[in-house]
Amino acid sequence: MRLAIVGAGAVGTAVAELAGEYGHTVTGLADSSSGVVDGDGIDVDAALERKRSEGAVGANAPDDVLHGPYEVLVEATPTTLGNAEPGFGHVRTALDRDRHAVLANKGPVAERYGDVRALEEKSAGDLLFEATVGGAIPVLSTIADVGAGNVSAVRGVLNGTANFVLSRMAAEGLSYEHVLAEAQDLGVAEADPSFDVEGTDAALKCVIVANVLAEDDREFTLADAEVSGIRDLQASALDLATEAGQTIRLIGEVSGGDVRVGPRLVPEHGTLAVGGTRNIVQLETAHAGRLNISGRGAGGPETASAVLADVGRLGE
Amino acid sequence: MRLAIVGAGAVGTAVAELAGEYGHTVTGLADSSSGVVDGDGIDVDAALERKRSEGAVGANAPDDVLHGPYEVLVEATPTTLGNAEPGFGHVRTALDRDRHAVLANKGPVAERYGDVRALEEKSAGDLLFEATVGGAIPVLSTIADVGAGNVSAVRGVLNGTANFVLSRMAAEGLSYEHVLAEAQDLGVAEADPSFDVEGTDAALKCVIVANVLAEDDREFTLADAEVSGIRDLQASALDLATEAGQTIRLIGEVSGGDVRVGPRLVPEHGTLAVGGTRNIVQLETAHAGRLNISGRGAGGPETASAVLADVGRLGE
Repeated sequence: MRLAIVGAGAVGTAVAELAGEYGHTVTGLADSSSGVVDGDGIDVDAALERKRSEGAVGANAPDDVLHGPYEVLVEATPTTLGNAEPGFGHVRTALDRDRHAVLANKGPVAERYGDVRALEEKSAGDLLFEATVGGAIPVLSTIADVGAGNVSAVRGVLNGTANFVLSRMAAEGLSYEHVLAEAQDLGVAEADPSFDVEGTDAALKCVIVANVLAEDDREFTLADAEVSGIRDLQASALDLATEAGQTIRLIGEVSGGDVRVGPRLVPEHGTLAVGGTRNIVQLETAHAGRLNISGRGAGGPETASAVLADVGRLGE
Repeated sequence: MRLAIVGAGAVGTAVAELAGEYGHTVTGLADSSSGVVDGDGIDVDAALERKRSEGAVGANAPDDVLHGPYEVLVEATPTTLGNAEPGFGHVRTALDRDRHAVLANKGPVAERYGDVRALEEKSAGDLLFEATVGGAIPVLSTIADVGAGNVSAVRGVLNGTANFVLSRMAAEGLSYEHVLAEAQDLGVAEADPSFDVEGTDAALKCVIVANVLAEDDREFTLADAEVSGIRDLQASALDLATEAGQTIRLIGEVSGGDVRVGPRLVPEHGTLAVGGTRNIVQLETAHAGRLNISGRGAGGPETASAVLADVGRLGE
């Protein structure tokens, strides 16, 4: 398939680099201010090198990529809230052109699910977004396999940064501020970590799952989620938990029409107590009991592999 | 889709009972000596009641089901080794008729993978067999999503009976014989448990995974697997493991063209040390790191849910 990739951050770059290995051709790549288009396939290495040296992937405008030749648009611009622009507009352009859209950007499916589904309904193209929930972990495809109507609850650890902080606080008895600074040094936490440590990122993923489980009966947005983060968590709370054979994790849960994210006590050696930046998702199913899936929830190549799994599904 | 189900044990029965909920119609059901066929849909409850009271699902012969009206043949007869008959013949009939075949029976894909793939090649029908590996756990669909060429190793706990025995031996300090008798009382182990405790069942699952990973470059059968079971494991070995923070699990592994099953030391609270009858599978991937998937590896409805996920994929 011919892929046009919008967004040249860690995920967009990894999709561009790996696409050939999966048998696809990258016919367009755009960052926020420039683009490169070639119906026969762009030179990915040259475009990324040009971005490093000149700050632009090519001589085209980003819009040329959106309107260029492709079967699948990969939307990998940063997640934005509210109207979810410019990601939403990119998806609309692709679907209006009867092309497929594969999202790594959570905004359009978390904040405007009804709108993107309505666009898909009118389009010959399909919309897939496995990469928006749990990075490399196949959460949405497993829900599709089991059948959304057969999944009664989804819960798990959906933010690697918050999990790293909690794991380290518990293991070393260190304060939140100390571990956060360490995580920022390691590149695990961003300079402004609020999206991760306040629970927003995990909540967006839960909202997307809630939308998928609701099967168009009801639409969820971030405003429907009850969210608390880990910023105010004291090291002493983790010590108390450890004494009782428990630990604390930032758990997101979708169940009975409710979306909740917050610090929860979980058994210290239990399934939900994954360590470091790992994510885990538990599905409660009608006929198959509980399924647990864990792995890397973020990272360029990891998230790109979920994007490329979606692209593969479109080709079936 | 119209399903014909061959095999009326726990899995075949559960597929018949759940198919309607997934939007499918059961147009045929056969046990080893009888069958019932109706192009408009059989009365599943009546067929199963007739089997209970009269020992036959209907007045037809089993072959009438194979040659009856359906888009998908569900092969759920018991796994047999060597020539994998009669399951192999059932699959051949369906594919020769350009119908799809979905397997719960491990025999044809473990012992005659090249033969069934060759039949599929010539057929307009497709062959899927998610249910043959890890019951409800989506192992093969995850490998397909990641890309078989991107999976360097697969390992895990693939037999719930053996895992139940090892978990209980470790937790209670009981002997193999004692726990096995308990498992037989509970219905977790069969009267003849050799298939499970000698590692054959786990090995067949690993052989199927090896065939999928080899992508037709090489064919594996049970004869290619190096297998040892848990029959001779002493309770003292588990005690020694526990003292060192380890425990013992029957681990199957496919890696570098080798298929091995045997008791292995694993960290007591590690990911592979699942308890009771649960199964877990770890995939080592090129771009997405390690993925872990755990859940119920056996059981009628659980395995049926994997069969019906395959049927859903055929309809896409």
